[in-house]
Amino acid sequence: MEPEDRGMVVTPWKVEGEIDYEKLIRQFGTQPIGDELLEKFRKHTGGLHYQLRRKIFFSHRDLDWIFRKLEEGEKFVLYTGRGPSGPVHLGHIVPWIFTLHLQETFKAKLYFQLTDDEKYLYHDDFSLPYTVRMARENALDLIALGFDPKLTKIILDVEHIDALYHVAIQVAKHITGSTIKAVFGLKDSDNIGLTFFPAIQAVPCFLESLLQGRNVPCLIPAAIDQDPYWRVARDVAPKIGFYKPAQIHSRFMPGLGRGGKMSASQPETCVFLTDPPEEAKKKIMNAFTGGRPTAEEQRKLGGNPEVCSIYQYYFFLFERDDGKLKALWEKCRGGAILCGECKLELAGRVSRFLEQHQEKRERARDKLEEFLLSGEERRQILSSLLSKV
Amino acid sequence: MEPEDRGMVVTPWKVEGEIDYEKLIRQFGTQPIGDELLEKFRKHTGGLHYQLRRKIFFSHRDLDWIFRKLEEGEKFVLYTGRGPSGPVHLGHIVPWIFTLHLQETFKAKLYFQLTDDEKYLYHDDFSLPYTVRMARENALDLIALGFDPKLTKIILDVEHIDALYHVAIQVAKHITGSTIKAVFGLKDSDNIGLTFFPAIQAVPCFLESLLQGRNVPCLIPAAIDQDPYWRVARDVAPKIGFYKPAQIHSRFMPGLGRGGKMSASQPETCVFLTDPPEEAKKKIMNAFTGGRPTAEEQRKLGGNPEVCSIYQYYFFLFERDDGKLKALWEKCRGGAILCGECKLELAGRVSRFLEQHQEKRERARDKLEEFLLSGEERRQILSSLLSKV
Repeated sequence: MEPEDRGMVVTPWKVEGEIDYEKLIRQFGTQPIGDELLEKFRKHTGGLHYQLRRKIFFSHRDLDWIFRKLEEGEKFVLYTGRGPSGPVHLGHIVPWIFTLHLQETFKAKLYFQLTDDEKYLYHDDFSLPYTVRMARENALDLIALGFDPKLTKIILDVEHIDALYHVAIQVAKHITGSTIKAVFGLKDSDNIGLTFFPAIQAVPCFLESLLQGRNVPCLIPAAIDQDPYWRVARDVAPKIGFYKPAQIHSRFMPGLGRGGKMSASQPETCVFLTDPPEEAKKKIMNAFTGGRPTAEEQRKLGGNPEVCSIYQYYFFLFERDDGKLKALWEKCRGGAILCGECKLELAGRVSRFLEQHQEKRERARDKLEEFLLSGEERRQILSSLLSKV
Repeated sequence: MEPEDRGMVVTPWKVEGEIDYEKLIRQFGTQPIGDELLEKFRKHTGGLHYQLRRKIFFSHRDLDWIFRKLEEGEKFVLYTGRGPSGPVHLGHIVPWIFTLHLQETFKAKLYFQLTDDEKYLYHDDFSLPYTVRMARENALDLIALGFDPKLTKIILDVEHIDALYHVAIQVAKHITGSTIKAVFGLKDSDNIGLTFFPAIQAVPCFLESLLQGRNVPCLIPAAIDQDPYWRVARDVAPKIGFYKPAQIHSRFMPGLGRGGKMSASQPETCVFLTDPPEEAKKKIMNAFTGGRPTAEEQRKLGGNPEVCSIYQYYFFLFERDDGKLKALWEKCRGGAILCGECKLELAGRVSRFLEQHQEKRERARDKLEEFLLSGEERRQILSSLLSKV
């Protein structure tokens, strides 16, 4: 790392330091989402989602190609996912909310992969029953957000491996150990399950093509730390007869700690979707802000929303009206609102969201089976191979 | 390799040079099968199979433990398999014949794994449909030998992965890349599927334990080149709560070429079970022998059965009566039989075997499903995990 990185580390397993997103675009070799592409979104969706207006989704690979294909009559499918290492927190759902928007506006099918295998392999102290259970628990949070059961296929890696493995080994045959070391920073001392896993994560890019028996474009909305997986998948795709998957990358939502620190291992820095609303309120009331030491100073000098974790919560999720967000910023800078009031307002919004979400989440238990990639679909995917035998 | 190895290379993918079996025992750290163990076989099976009498099975790991467990009332299951890279040849069935003997005399359940995934991953020019098809074709040869459908579970890796993967990742979590490099000689330039594969090959050691919900001893009869897989499986087994699998190792049957060369890539050096009997006869008539340049010299000086590929065919498969084998050896050494006559006799035996085998093999097509690990069994194996979730 160069000194000006200030300790920036972005890999699928670690996001640390102050993130310079311009730099990530250069390092990862992706493209910024420019005006022309925003115009395409406006044209196809009748507006611009707040996450595009605010550049929360800021970078892409081949998004222009996705629109070109769409305009030629080839619809795309969506693919994203989650490593079920524990409960889902608010940061995780930022890209899911955008994915939901894409599903709704493009009537796009979504493949959602829950990598219980990866999380088991990565964490020394996780048992496989734990990650398999968390996969099903995390799926409830996805369903509760309002995805369409007819257009959503949730993949549980361990339970649905019959549809994945034959594709994964075709991917794996084209990836060397050197590539995995270079792209993911794995070492000889890492376990061989982790080395193989990127082949499993590539598979959902190709499932719709296998089901339809013809190439179908795939667009992956996900936080940019997952990009290494897609770089590898893109290299392999044409070698095994598929389109390269396209990506659209989001920023990370900061946490409630000092300097936007959020970590599932420090539960006070993030709000989990399963937190009791009262507990979530407390976390927010204890959050790090851009406020001054005293109310008097703040009224005189104003607060600093740029470094405020509370402001980020409004920005990423809880104030989707740009005008109101701007007004909040100005009130803070002008000393017209104090941190306590601002936190209380957010705490109310968050706890109302959690109450509603948790109700929907419990109702989702009965709907889970309807969302899972079915035995019939898995057989159909496997038969894409067996019919050639 | 030391100079005295004369180019001996024994890995799961390559067997080359003049094999020094004593040295293999030292290199691999296995045990020779001594008189005490042969006595156990006599006691339990009422005699000694020709492959034990002739030390075709010559080495083991924990075979004494298998007998101890048996005598304490814990029956073992058998596990062996085949990499379906092409048609089965006579050399492959040597350990299968011994496995059949063990199944019959101990009424032991057999897991037989067909590694269509491994062979696809190993051979650049193999397609996955090809190895998946060869797996089913090779299974027919196994069935034709007379295995008991009630006691035999054939595993097709790609099609039965739903029963294997969750166990494989538990194995994989305990194997580092360094171990795979050291044990199998893989390099960073090899593909990540091959690196992961030893975890898949370990799984059948543990399937009966998962089905029964308690630890069941497993004995693996196989050619000694497969030993590296079991070394790794044995290291991992206790870490994930299973017994270490025991092994009994066989020698390689030499081929028909000079110096006992046999290679599937040189089809004239081995007899495939699907060869038309007439073609097999021709291969045998063209084989390398220990004969003299002229009939006259041979009558005077005698032949050399030690270097004769034809003699090895009698020894490994086609003359199971020790007295008759010894008589043949002596006739050859004494110049009382010429190579033509000896070959003609073997050719007759081989072609009669092939005719009968090929009939049984065709009838086996209708029985294949009965032998395959069933969907119900696979669900039961997976539920050994899911019941803990």
